[in-house]
Amino acid sequence: MTEQYKIFEENLTGTAQGNPYTDIWLKAAFKNDSETVEVNGFYCGDGNYRVRFMPAEPGTWTAVTRSNDPMLNGRRLVCECTPASEGNHGRVLRKDEVYPQSACTEEDRFHFSYEDGSRFQPFGTTCYAWINQPGDIQEQTLETLKSSCFNKVRMCIFPKFYTYNTADPEFYAFEGNEAEGFDHTRFNPVFWDNLEKRIRQLDELGIEADLILLHPYDKWGFAKMDRETDVFYLKYAVDRLCHFKNVWWALANEFDLLPWKSVEDWELYARTVMCRDSYGHLRSIHNCVKLYDHTRPWITHVSIQRIDVYKTAEAVSEWRQEYQKPVVVDECAYEGNINFGWGNITGEEMTRRFWEGCIRGGYLSHGEVYVQHEQIWWSHGGKLHGTCPERIAFLKGIMEDVPEGAAPLKLTPENHEANWDVPCLCREEDHSYYLYYFGFFQPAFRTYELPEGCSYEIELIDTWDMTVEKLPGTYAGSVRIELPQKQYMAVRMRKVC
Amino acid sequence: MTEQYKIFEENLTGTAQGNPYTDIWLKAAFKNDSETVEVNGFYCGDGNYRVRFMPAEPGTWTAVTRSNDPMLNGRRLVCECTPASEGNHGRVLRKDEVYPQSACTEEDRFHFSYEDGSRFQPFGTTCYAWINQPGDIQEQTLETLKSSCFNKVRMCIFPKFYTYNTADPEFYAFEGNEAEGFDHTRFNPVFWDNLEKRIRQLDELGIEADLILLHPYDKWGFAKMDRETDVFYLKYAVDRLCHFKNVWWALANEFDLLPWKSVEDWELYARTVMCRDSYGHLRSIHNCVKLYDHTRPWITHVSIQRIDVYKTAEAVSEWRQEYQKPVVVDECAYEGNINFGWGNITGEEMTRRFWEGCIRGGYLSHGEVYVQHEQIWWSHGGKLHGTCPERIAFLKGIMEDVPEGAAPLKLTPENHEANWDVPCLCREEDHSYYLYYFGFFQPAFRTYELPEGCSYEIELIDTWDMTVEKLPGTYAGSVRIELPQKQYMAVRMRKVC
Repeated sequence: MTEQYKIFEENLTGTAQGNPYTDIWLKAAFKNDSETVEVNGFYCGDGNYRVRFMPAEPGTWTAVTRSNDPMLNGRRLVCECTPASEGNHGRVLRKDEVYPQSACTEEDRFHFSYEDGSRFQPFGTTCYAWINQPGDIQEQTLETLKSSCFNKVRMCIFPKFYTYNTADPEFYAFEGNEAEGFDHTRFNPVFWDNLEKRIRQLDELGIEADLILLHPYDKWGFAKMDRETDVFYLKYAVDRLCHFKNVWWALANEFDLLPWKSVEDWELYARTVMCRDSYGHLRSIHNCVKLYDHTRPWITHVSIQRIDVYKTAEAVSEWRQEYQKPVVVDECAYEGNINFGWGNITGEEMTRRFWEGCIRGGYLSHGEVYVQHEQIWWSHGGKLHGTCPERIAFLKGIMEDVPEGAAPLKLTPENHEANWDVPCLCREEDHSYYLYYFGFFQPAFRTYELPEGCSYEIELIDTWDMTVEKLPGTYAGSVRIELPQKQYMAVRMRKVC
Repeated sequence: MTEQYKIFEENLTGTAQGNPYTDIWLKAAFKNDSETVEVNGFYCGDGNYRVRFMPAEPGTWTAVTRSNDPMLNGRRLVCECTPASEGNHGRVLRKDEVYPQSACTEEDRFHFSYEDGSRFQPFGTTCYAWINQPGDIQEQTLETLKSSCFNKVRMCIFPKFYTYNTADPEFYAFEGNEAEGFDHTRFNPVFWDNLEKRIRQLDELGIEADLILLHPYDKWGFAKMDRETDVFYLKYAVDRLCHFKNVWWALANEFDLLPWKSVEDWELYARTVMCRDSYGHLRSIHNCVKLYDHTRPWITHVSIQRIDVYKTAEAVSEWRQEYQKPVVVDECAYEGNINFGWGNITGEEMTRRFWEGCIRGGYLSHGEVYVQHEQIWWSHGGKLHGTCPERIAFLKGIMEDVPEGAAPLKLTPENHEANWDVPCLCREEDHSYYLYYFGFFQPAFRTYELPEGCSYEIELIDTWDMTVEKLPGTYAGSVRIELPQKQYMAVRMRKVC
């Protein structure tokens, strides 16, 4: 029995002659009463082949395999699917893909949803090379994630070669090694088995695996494979991994630092991923300095590295306007003390960027680079040492509590004077909810003209000290709220009648 | 005897009949051996007229008055001018106006100079309505300024009506009062005498008076005078005040909040000021949300209010590039705890903005709005309570020590990777000086590739604690500097051989 949104898997035995990775194809079309899902099986060494399928509906799904290897052809597969158990919500998609258009508001295009309709608000973190660390460190990373609030991890498939990251991994995606060279036509099953184990473990923790398929930080040649090899690799990766409900595809980290790959290459790679992914997982492509054209229809959401050193999460408003898609600021700099400007902001500033971006209707990813530790989270995983993760957890709680349909306050000539300085997330249509964030401002008070005929409970939120203080009574009309003259405060108003 | 750059003044008696403000004109052309300076005299009530002249060269200057009042016509005036005494450097102008073109570098267009060639780096503050407060407060403001580092004050001629500013002043520029109306054809000599006294007192403190000629915060009608009245007022103001060497003309504060005045109006007002000002004092026009076209030739320097809430002094680089003039960020928000976002940043953030702007080759003005005090500095003057003024004084000392010719490091493809994150003020041509400012970054160390063949002394500057720590020895080649992992640090390098 296979649980809905989990993986049905059938192991088959076929030829081990020649190079099955290049020579053998294997397909199956899973059908229930109303739908057909075509999947690609894949070779995993020693004459072993595997067909996987993620059923999105309970019931019986059947398939008959097709292959150019007679041993793999014509095999009948039956997947008996049981309804999803509690906590299993399926893939994360764009909210406007999950809900029918008639049920979608203008705001929904900027947000995500699990495919069962549950809300998903990404609070990501970054551990680029965690699966390429020693096994005990990988286990430690999982332990850390387990007790953190993060629900998305940005992670590479290929190992990383960069400052503080010079060790060779134990296993590579391809057969071979650095000294003797890699065989780009044969994959290393040990590597892929471990990667899948880690993706599965993340899923058990409710964490999305934002898989970075290509990246520039390389000394092994994986960043400079030719177009055919890239496509060959992408097909294999997607054939194997697309069945995990918690997978997102990041075509690249910092695509613009791979200048030998053209826009035509990336577009081909995007088509390849889409064509081989039976389930339409989320797709993005991340930048260093130059943004990819994020209006391209295959890009489901903006995965952005802030370009400006100063204006980071604040630009969420502009990016939403420009791209009309969910905006995930996957790099807004990291908390830490590294020598580079991308990795030495304070926990306060990181927390501020998270709040600022969330209030503006975007999402952010965390990262941490404290150089004094043997493992640096942003790349190795290991342990967290910073001050912002618990504040991000606090923010996540506040955001989970934001009513559906809330949107950043639209500035108009009429409301500009009262709102130009402080962003606000609110439900304007019924005036039921307002969440103002003051960032680095330290006002002694603030005045509000509350909507006519409405009465509110008001809370002061100290986003750094992580306290919520309900002010006595209820409020209506012209209101003056005393504030503690310190940075990082928020005010929440909820309509009571 | 009149000291060079100070005011020669001759009082004359003429008619008191009719309205001398509108009816009588009085001119004099002061000549020495090589030059003629035409000035306008002005009426100051009770049949008293005054001719003023600021000699820019020692020696004998003579003039014969001309007037449509026979009593004022044909009077011979002699100004015996002695050389400037110590500390008297004359007007502040653009550096490329003071130095011959052949002696100017590309950078000089972004800076100021006294007319005697001494350096002037503006560190301004804002006391909009200080001359419209009770006399004892005006005295207190001067006392405060005396012990501060500020060398420019932004101040209005007309009183200010705005939140926290609702009191009527004792005297107005025009005759009349609010109840009975103002006579826009007659000026009140008591007001102008006091204004001049205050400008003179500022000059004695070495402070430039950045005079705001028009502004929107008004209940008395001065913001809504018609074009002819504006011109009449501007002529009188300039005729009286242009002889003070420490005067700058700010045509408006927030010109865009006076939408009933057209671009044609402002251009006319600019021509009027230029035509009546015998000495070519600095001229600017300040914005709220929309910038005036700062490429206009009459604008000597950019007097800007930051538009973006987040990116403020950092934009100096862009504004320099765009306007090719000195950039003075006259409003980058103020230290304080007011309810409005323009006046509730911390002293730390204000200090950071000052450093950031200075390192980028611009200048900033300070302001302070702590609501718990009876006088709020930004408008009333009085006392300073904030934490940034002493840090600005510290910065001023650091900036005075920057060698002539230093300029912001130009980012190139070659130096980008090492410098994208941290701005640097330096002398690139002889590699003699580098001043790096880390702002909100908190690196544990930084590495530098020092220019070949040069050896440096290196100092750590804590811009908040106001300390300068010289590191032992000298440095050459590849260098790693340990840093204290805190915000607001700077590194200064000076070539020793």
